[in-house]
Amino acid sequence: MDKQLNVVPFISVDRMMRLVHSIGVEQFLVELAQYIEEDFLRWNSFDKTPRIASHSVDGVIELMPTSDGRFYGFKYVNGHPKNTRDGLQTVTAFGLLADVATGYPVLLSEMTMLTALRTAAMSAVAGKYLAPKGNSTMALIGNGAQSEFQALAFKALLGVDKLRLYDVDPAASQKCARNLARHGFASIEICSAAAEAVEGAGIITTATADKQYATILSDNMVGPGVHINAVGGDCPGKTEIHSDILLRSDIFVEFPPQTRIEGEIQQLAEDHPVIELWDVIAGHAAGRSSERQITLFDSVGFAIEDFSALRYVYDKTVGAETLEFLDLIADPDDPRDLFGMLMRSPAAMPA
Amino acid sequence: MDKQLNVVPFISVDRMMRLVHSIGVEQFLVELAQYIEEDFLRWNSFDKTPRIASHSVDGVIELMPTSDGRFYGFKYVNGHPKNTRDGLQTVTAFGLLADVATGYPVLLSEMTMLTALRTAAMSAVAGKYLAPKGNSTMALIGNGAQSEFQALAFKALLGVDKLRLYDVDPAASQKCARNLARHGFASIEICSAAAEAVEGAGIITTATADKQYATILSDNMVGPGVHINAVGGDCPGKTEIHSDILLRSDIFVEFPPQTRIEGEIQQLAEDHPVIELWDVIAGHAAGRSSERQITLFDSVGFAIEDFSALRYVYDKTVGAETLEFLDLIADPDDPRDLFGMLMRSPAAMPA
Repeated sequence: MDKQLNVVPFISVDRMMRLVHSIGVEQFLVELAQYIEEDFLRWNSFDKTPRIASHSVDGVIELMPTSDGRFYGFKYVNGHPKNTRDGLQTVTAFGLLADVATGYPVLLSEMTMLTALRTAAMSAVAGKYLAPKGNSTMALIGNGAQSEFQALAFKALLGVDKLRLYDVDPAASQKCARNLARHGFASIEICSAAAEAVEGAGIITTATADKQYATILSDNMVGPGVHINAVGGDCPGKTEIHSDILLRSDIFVEFPPQTRIEGEIQQLAEDHPVIELWDVIAGHAAGRSSERQITLFDSVGFAIEDFSALRYVYDKTVGAETLEFLDLIADPDDPRDLFGMLMRSPAAMPA
Repeated sequence: MDKQLNVVPFISVDRMMRLVHSIGVEQFLVELAQYIEEDFLRWNSFDKTPRIASHSVDGVIELMPTSDGRFYGFKYVNGHPKNTRDGLQTVTAFGLLADVATGYPVLLSEMTMLTALRTAAMSAVAGKYLAPKGNSTMALIGNGAQSEFQALAFKALLGVDKLRLYDVDPAASQKCARNLARHGFASIEICSAAAEAVEGAGIITTATADKQYATILSDNMVGPGVHINAVGGDCPGKTEIHSDILLRSDIFVEFPPQTRIEGEIQQLAEDHPVIELWDVIAGHAAGRSSERQITLFDSVGFAIEDFSALRYVYDKTVGAETLEFLDLIADPDDPRDLFGMLMRSPAAMPA
């Protein structure tokens, strides 16, 4: 038995950034996408539950647990749209991976950065099965914290190298374009309207952050054959896509019980047909099946994707010499003698 | 806005033990009990949900969230009875307190030690309202990790100074007696049977750890007027008290929807009457009302008690010079520019 069981490997924000750079952002996204696909392929081996949300006036705090029987993982994540006014992140997150056999944590990790990466990797995995072939242009509507990650994931996994950016705040588009300038895109165009951004794009990614019913895409903007990657609608009352578009689309989702509460499809009837993405990946259902079909990935973010991300980071860091450890788990020599550990610890000595 | 929002104060196991010693174990239990009583008095201001459990062959991993609208707290806790065979703790835990207004964590803390303390403080709070007056003897059946904390909490809050110990393993009783030897008890007696331990005791505390239906207390052991503090039954299939005793007792519980699943009352009909402890503390319901009444606190441990414990530790440590901080929250200068933070961080430099 490892003597180190009382300490928990810790991936700080700095450590996560160093890990991403040591692998390379695009390679990280490609490998993370592989982990997500692996886990979606064994979908039925996971415990699944909609996230456990605690809503307040200003936002929501959620726990997202899942388990494959070997590991247990959960993510803590908040969503507070007004936070940006105070210079805070809208979404912050951290997560934990534990050994199901003992219940002992094996990894505690920041997940603000990791969630941005896994959300983009997930979108690109869906895009692999749903986006039209032979079109390497993506409209990117909403150029906030998630936008660059989406762009790089679609470039790395699908070869999308032409971007058309739009945001209600032009400064956000400029920031996005600047950040992506030296990442090998053939063209990055800043557009002055969403309708302009979608022109000629085979993929339309929406990633806005307003917590209200908004119509980022209206019906006349969406022609046949496109793939819509709807990332921003992710809680009750927050949607981006006009329901008329939804009604013309084949809709693909992660975990229906959660998506019906949080996704674009909260606008539709409760029994509106949707296709589970894992069924597509596993070959049980068709992805894109015709040139004129409109496909829509109603992304809300599911616990299994976070599990895949934690599992990937765990595999990449376990045993690393530079790993930091937290003294998080009380581990008395005699498990029945927690009190003795307290009384005999150096902490009992006067300073 | 505090510049330190990207880092999270961290209470390690060592730090928790130093905190306990700096306050004194008994004083810590007394103050923690006050926090629990305060929170039980405002019971209706909390979001309440039964814990979210992930069961496996060897044990269970649980998340226990709650919120009072100002703070959000949750605990991660496992229960793996076979762990002790491998020199591991049956129960380990950590928890987090966050600011509801922003979703940002304000404290990450070990909770193995803290859970042992809060469980004992909770039992003593219940004992204040339910135990018979004028009897300072407690039988303590099950002398594992929880036993000394129970003994000290009842001594500090109720003046219980005579202990009668019993455990199926005499070594556990010897350990418990040894650990408590210099803590001011008038007498500590090791008994050779549970029936012997309960003789003359006004309070009977059961705190065994077997994950199975067990009968630690059978009907003939329990005479009129005693208070039973049933700590060990805390998950489906795990009980300690014969149902005949339950049927003769007035049963007090924390949160009925959780206790009906996990507590001793899982042996009874779903509508068997129980009294909510918070109603007693708030004066809405009677606690002990007669000398011959058998009272039973069916303790399973509820999220609000962990919240109280985190809130207490937060109040005791906030602003302390020696506080340790974790780099857990990504905090870019521009909240929309998470990618820029990644790309411009020192982590991007070749080592």
